[in-house]
Amino acid sequence: MKHHTLLMPLDMHLHLRDGIMLENIALLSAYSFSGALVMPNLVPPVRSKEELLAYKARISQAVGMEAADEDEFEEIGEFSDNGGFEPYMTLFYQNYDKVFLAEIAEEITAIKLYPAGITTNSEGGVKNFDLNEMRPTLEAMAELNIPLCVHGETDGFVMDREAEFMNIYDALATNFPKLKIIMEHITTKAAVEMLDKHPNLFATITVHHLLMTLDDVAGGMLKPHLFCKPIAKRPQDRDALLQIALNAHPKVMFGSDSAPHPRDKKESCGCAAGIFTAPIALQLLCELFDKHGKLENLQAFVSDNAQSIYSLCPEFKEVILAKRPFKVPEDYKGVVPMYAGETIGWAIEDVN
Amino acid sequence: MKHHTLLMPLDMHLHLRDGIMLENIALLSAYSFSGALVMPNLVPPVRSKEELLAYKARISQAVGMEAADEDEFEEIGEFSDNGGFEPYMTLFYQNYDKVFLAEIAEEITAIKLYPAGITTNSEGGVKNFDLNEMRPTLEAMAELNIPLCVHGETDGFVMDREAEFMNIYDALATNFPKLKIIMEHITTKAAVEMLDKHPNLFATITVHHLLMTLDDVAGGMLKPHLFCKPIAKRPQDRDALLQIALNAHPKVMFGSDSAPHPRDKKESCGCAAGIFTAPIALQLLCELFDKHGKLENLQAFVSDNAQSIYSLCPEFKEVILAKRPFKVPEDYKGVVPMYAGETIGWAIEDVN
Repeated sequence: MKHHTLLMPLDMHLHLRDGIMLENIALLSAYSFSGALVMPNLVPPVRSKEELLAYKARISQAVGMEAADEDEFEEIGEFSDNGGFEPYMTLFYQNYDKVFLAEIAEEITAIKLYPAGITTNSEGGVKNFDLNEMRPTLEAMAELNIPLCVHGETDGFVMDREAEFMNIYDALATNFPKLKIIMEHITTKAAVEMLDKHPNLFATITVHHLLMTLDDVAGGMLKPHLFCKPIAKRPQDRDALLQIALNAHPKVMFGSDSAPHPRDKKESCGCAAGIFTAPIALQLLCELFDKHGKLENLQAFVSDNAQSIYSLCPEFKEVILAKRPFKVPEDYKGVVPMYAGETIGWAIEDVN
Repeated sequence: MKHHTLLMPLDMHLHLRDGIMLENIALLSAYSFSGALVMPNLVPPVRSKEELLAYKARISQAVGMEAADEDEFEEIGEFSDNGGFEPYMTLFYQNYDKVFLAEIAEEITAIKLYPAGITTNSEGGVKNFDLNEMRPTLEAMAELNIPLCVHGETDGFVMDREAEFMNIYDALATNFPKLKIIMEHITTKAAVEMLDKHPNLFATITVHHLLMTLDDVAGGMLKPHLFCKPIAKRPQDRDALLQIALNAHPKVMFGSDSAPHPRDKKESCGCAAGIFTAPIALQLLCELFDKHGKLENLQAFVSDNAQSIYSLCPEFKEVILAKRPFKVPEDYKGVVPMYAGETIGWAIEDVN
């Protein structure tokens, strides 16, 4: 049986939510990842040191808990002695003063910017991109070496939102050349082409955007569990993403954007955006990179690039995957994962 | 209060289904329409005279039945003495011989062609458009003056399927100049532009494609009750449709494509395609045409054009609509309509 080992996998875009959902799903990421960049779009969003530290403590508690039912983890491998998990914390972008940023810089890995109302719990985001208004905050961030992560969509037509946002990336990157800007969960050829235009632009890519186009969401039956923002785009967009991910372009990192919602919020008359991939992301990536003969590049895509872009030193963790059928569970405590009930080609064999 | 009267409204593309669904929903169309072109995509599809006549009998029975609960109709107006309802029958396209067609011509209003697998119950449709293979059937139809209704989508990328089909319309219209071809439920600027290229091309337009773009289906929450095939397209496509509908282009008719599914087939992990608009279509059209100052053209769009294209003489029916708030029911016997629970600006006042 073919095996592949990944060292210190990192998920550089993760929604862990809060409360019972956090308790239910955090361990699934902690099991197979060394760390994850945790998104701050709670209700209310994470905007103060107190909120940040309290959220981090809740995550640590959720991750430190024993699995209530160890059987649940059998399907994804043994759950024991699997090393630590570092939640890399983020603040919700607003205009912050430099004193505050200097004080909190040690506690955060990035600040995440949402345009107002563009996705789940983003109502308090940026309403217009007035760079003069944003300048003190962004210059302080650049000086303190705090990267800016951006959900890059306008409020335009759903298939054009990301491409339309390229002007804003262009303006941000030009005006703040010392600021590290991460284009989060890119989905278009336009974003791939933008990546090399500025040395300070980077990107995360999800596993689902490497696998899907809009056809998978709405081409046959409508699939709520494959609905996310940004929505999956055209085949040529997916191909452009695949090209840079499979070749582990050094400015690109894996970020799952795994976003859990209870089943009844997905299978309803108004389905919330978000695909839950955390527990199957590494298996899917192995299958995909293997299929394209690019397994040797997966380590850079799921860890090394992120370590170098964010200057991270994750604790040791070794995830051994095997090329054998793995039936994706129908749900994880009421959260339906991507490909629920389907069989994929790689499984996690062991984690050390 | 402003009123508007429509005479002999016709729905030139309607799914009445069969069995209990037929019994539950047929009356809703029969209430406000003089007649409807009934789609043949049952399981199995309607392909013989026996199947056709038996289906027509089941429809007549469903329409003749008294409403089990007259209260249900209060919200859409009095249900009494509202004239007849003619189901204009269609056959499911396959290659038929001329003798059969000549024999059945009196019983049918059109033949409906589905590309194989392109929508609900279309598995037995046309696999490739080999015009030589189709020639005897299509020539016989032209000679017998049987129109060909076409679901015009390829199996390409979901946003391109209709535009890609234009070549096939072009070839059909060119090769069979005496055949009346109806481009069903058109959704794109490309189809609007095709309409005037051939004198033998006509089109139906739904009310939902006049109101929606993909943004309404997937731009905010994902809305299963607004998911249909062909999927709603871009704003410029919707604008092109609006332009010809509001001006009652003489080659264009209203066809609701109203397609009922039980709620659990819509709000599920794989949502079936189809929007249920039959009971609210006239109200929505009045609101839309009124808003654009084009109420005087609605009569042509919902009846006169169809009468002339299909040479129909529907029985007298007068539908009086009033400009007053109408709250769309949450469901009609378990079938969720478009805009369920929302209030629209026009209501049916009376039907004579």
